[in-house]
Amino acid sequence: MDGENGLLKKANEAFYRAFELLDIERMGRVWDTTEEIQCIHPGWNLLQGWTAVRDSWEGIFKNTKYMEFRITYSSAHISGDLGYIICVENITSSYGGPASENSILATNIFRKRNGLWKIIHHHGSPLLE
Amino acid sequence: MDGENGLLKKANEAFYRAFELLDIERMGRVWDTTEEIQCIHPGWNLLQGWTAVRDSWEGIFKNTKYMEFRITYSSAHISGDLGYIICVENITSSYGGPASENSILATNIFRKRNGLWKIIHHHGSPLLE
Repeated sequence: MDGENGLLKKANEAFYRAFELLDIERMGRVWDTTEEIQCIHPGWNLLQGWTAVRDSWEGIFKNTKYMEFRITYSSAHISGDLGYIICVENITSSYGGPASENSILATNIFRKRNGLWKIIHHHGSPLLE
Repeated sequence: MDGENGLLKKANEAFYRAFELLDIERMGRVWDTTEEIQCIHPGWNLLQGWTAVRDSWEGIFKNTKYMEFRITYSSAHISGDLGYIICVENITSSYGGPASENSILATNIFRKRNGLWKIIHHHGSPLLE
């Protein structure tokens, strides 16, 4: 299970790498690109299906000038073809102005498809106050 | 799997019923009360382990006068002894003043222990704007 946990964490890293590179093609390779998936961006309403999720990433990427993640892992769990990771996204980002730092809590759920862990749900939420 | 999905939804309902009743003993029966679990209340930092999570519920219950949920299900998935539900919590609540309405998005992850689905992770996040 250690090896499988390692693969799950690699899939999680690939997700944040695609986000840093603002690369929609890479993002498409880390998600399970079906209409079954879900995504909750911090403060947004629930998005259902890859069409809506892809649109959201394209919009986010268009408005982002710089994005860097330092991920703190809290836990990774696997059962069968389902796995999840809870992590803290320590973010340095710029949307045109000076860079700022903030933290987002994320629950990322993955399904194994043809031997590869693919994201089926991302839930990011802001730390308030 | 339909039967198992039904049991998962029942466990999810029991969680919100315990919350509505502001009943810490009931809440303890729906969670996997180990130090492995996590909880992210809307806007809060990540809580680790039942001791911290129980304390948080006691604090929330103490400050809540009235709590009512209308849950809209988005999806429920199971693989082996792991399952999750993504839902919208449509809430009517009072903390002493007049009742107000708001919505929270939740990802609830469950593990089957001795034939019973128990919560191992709750991630609630506010809808902003």
